[in-house]
Amino acid sequence: MTQDIPMHDVVMVGAGPAALSAAVYTTREDVDTLLFERGVVGGLAAVTDKVDNYPGFPDGIEGLTLADNLRKQAERFGAVIELGEVSGMKREGDFIRLETTSGDILARAVLIATGSDYKKVGVSGEQEFYARGVHYCATCDGAFYRGKRLVVIGGGNSAVQESLFLTRYATHIDLLVRSTIKASEILQKDLEQAVKAGKITVHLHTTTDEIVGQDNKVVKVVGTDTKTRSKVDFPTDGVFVFVGLKPNSEFLKNSEVELDSIGFIKTDKHLQTSMPGVFAAGDIRSGSTMQIATAVGEGATAALVIREYLDGKLTPVAETTEEVVVPTV
Amino acid sequence: MTQDIPMHDVVMVGAGPAALSAAVYTTREDVDTLLFERGVVGGLAAVTDKVDNYPGFPDGIEGLTLADNLRKQAERFGAVIELGEVSGMKREGDFIRLETTSGDILARAVLIATGSDYKKVGVSGEQEFYARGVHYCATCDGAFYRGKRLVVIGGGNSAVQESLFLTRYATHIDLLVRSTIKASEILQKDLEQAVKAGKITVHLHTTTDEIVGQDNKVVKVVGTDTKTRSKVDFPTDGVFVFVGLKPNSEFLKNSEVELDSIGFIKTDKHLQTSMPGVFAAGDIRSGSTMQIATAVGEGATAALVIREYLDGKLTPVAETTEEVVVPTV
Repeated sequence: MTQDIPMHDVVMVGAGPAALSAAVYTTREDVDTLLFERGVVGGLAAVTDKVDNYPGFPDGIEGLTLADNLRKQAERFGAVIELGEVSGMKREGDFIRLETTSGDILARAVLIATGSDYKKVGVSGEQEFYARGVHYCATCDGAFYRGKRLVVIGGGNSAVQESLFLTRYATHIDLLVRSTIKASEILQKDLEQAVKAGKITVHLHTTTDEIVGQDNKVVKVVGTDTKTRSKVDFPTDGVFVFVGLKPNSEFLKNSEVELDSIGFIKTDKHLQTSMPGVFAAGDIRSGSTMQIATAVGEGATAALVIREYLDGKLTPVAETTEEVVVPTV
Repeated sequence: MTQDIPMHDVVMVGAGPAALSAAVYTTREDVDTLLFERGVVGGLAAVTDKVDNYPGFPDGIEGLTLADNLRKQAERFGAVIELGEVSGMKREGDFIRLETTSGDILARAVLIATGSDYKKVGVSGEQEFYARGVHYCATCDGAFYRGKRLVVIGGGNSAVQESLFLTRYATHIDLLVRSTIKASEILQKDLEQAVKAGKITVHLHTTTDEIVGQDNKVVKVVGTDTKTRSKVDFPTDGVFVFVGLKPNSEFLKNSEVELDSIGFIKTDKHLQTSMPGVFAAGDIRSGSTMQIATAVGEGATAALVIREYLDGKLTPVAETTEEVVVPTV
């Protein structure tokens, strides 16, 4: 029976920077590699307007161009990218059987690099100005707002931490908090300092209703003060949203792959998950930095580790670790 | 007194891909950053003929061009690169004092990214054909030898492992071993198989005396059979040398920074060394993959971790780990 099922050395779930980088390595070494992508080849990089901090491009590079470069490079060595979805995974002897929209396939090793998505507020204008006025990563896009005004949406640890970080660039930040601040004590103290210094104004009990643009640029955010029920305008040059991350790991819910409390994949230092033969790299990994450079680096490392695994030279799965200190993203 | 000593937020030792990547991140966030380079800006990447596997360049990129791109990108955001050497480092209150060829300087945080050098055989022709006929990294350059003949020099674990790996590409490999094979049992068994299959011929007690080129290409290696004292010619298209790695960590010998048995720097999962405020990334790290992509990824991660450290938000140094399973390089 098994003979009828397509078989590959390596199947990669996802075709963003981490998987494409890994595929450059595996296919260059003639390891038969199939990638499954349910969305956009290139992942979040592909939908980013300008990538300024991926090393190798002195003046930055358009996200779509970078994604295209990564895809072409992997395909040059023989990577095959299939558009479709993986819905489940289980061990079957020396193989891993993947349920996919193209039927079942078998793989000797699997790399999960499905990434994460930033949660959206879900208001008008948010999609339209995605990555060109509305942002989800301060490390990536904060530097575009030197000497500008910003609105930050969110009230948790990351909203507060990223607001503080963005004061490096922005002249003033309006922080819109739906209810109240839910951040650590140390962050709240730092926030108080920034408020006193006039760098941040906190607007509690304020919903975000609409992101408004003019001449193809964001000009204001319209919110509602839920206590007074009055509409409020926040003139701004850009908006940063920090209302959470959604790791793309639903398909692993009933698998052997151990996830952390949020749904990110736990790995050991060799990027092995708790399921033998299954590895993870990039933004789906617990402790990920959400940076293209890091995803690409992890992809390369994963490919080398997978080579060891396929050659029978890798040590068994060590205890997986959940990263506790996540660098600011 | 201390007031007279130049002071920086971050000093990076080395200006190869790891440090330049980190510098893109720190300087883009307006963190004052000084890099010290004693050799070539761009490190080993700069002296590599063609880099085929750094993700983002579909047709590969010249090593020198990539190095130049990395330097320009870091300098665009304000990185300052000083040519000179760091000879020592010690803790001084909240700072680290570095002894350099430009005098003492103080840093709030230090990133060590001095890389490693491949040990040379030290024969005629080796320097002349460096990276264009004589290679030190099979993962990087093996794919250029599809359907070609190769000579591999060395007799340890990595020489045997890399020879086996190179049989993916080369039609035949002459393995020149100065004395006898000193590799693990499993590798020796795999080697026997490859010898039986006619893929590798092992030449024990054979020194390498000269790498000979013609028309700007390597054509043969001349060795001596030390038992018969006769000269032997090995016609070949290329040479791979695996006689060891030399981490550039001499200047840390009397420092607090813990090294592994070979001299690589031990780090925890946040790239912290055993010395508070001192981080390491790239090829100098214990467990490094010796890949530009990984070095660049670690550089980005290190910069984010250093930001946390400078903001007082990083946990103290965890137990450092020596990586035991090093992926094939």
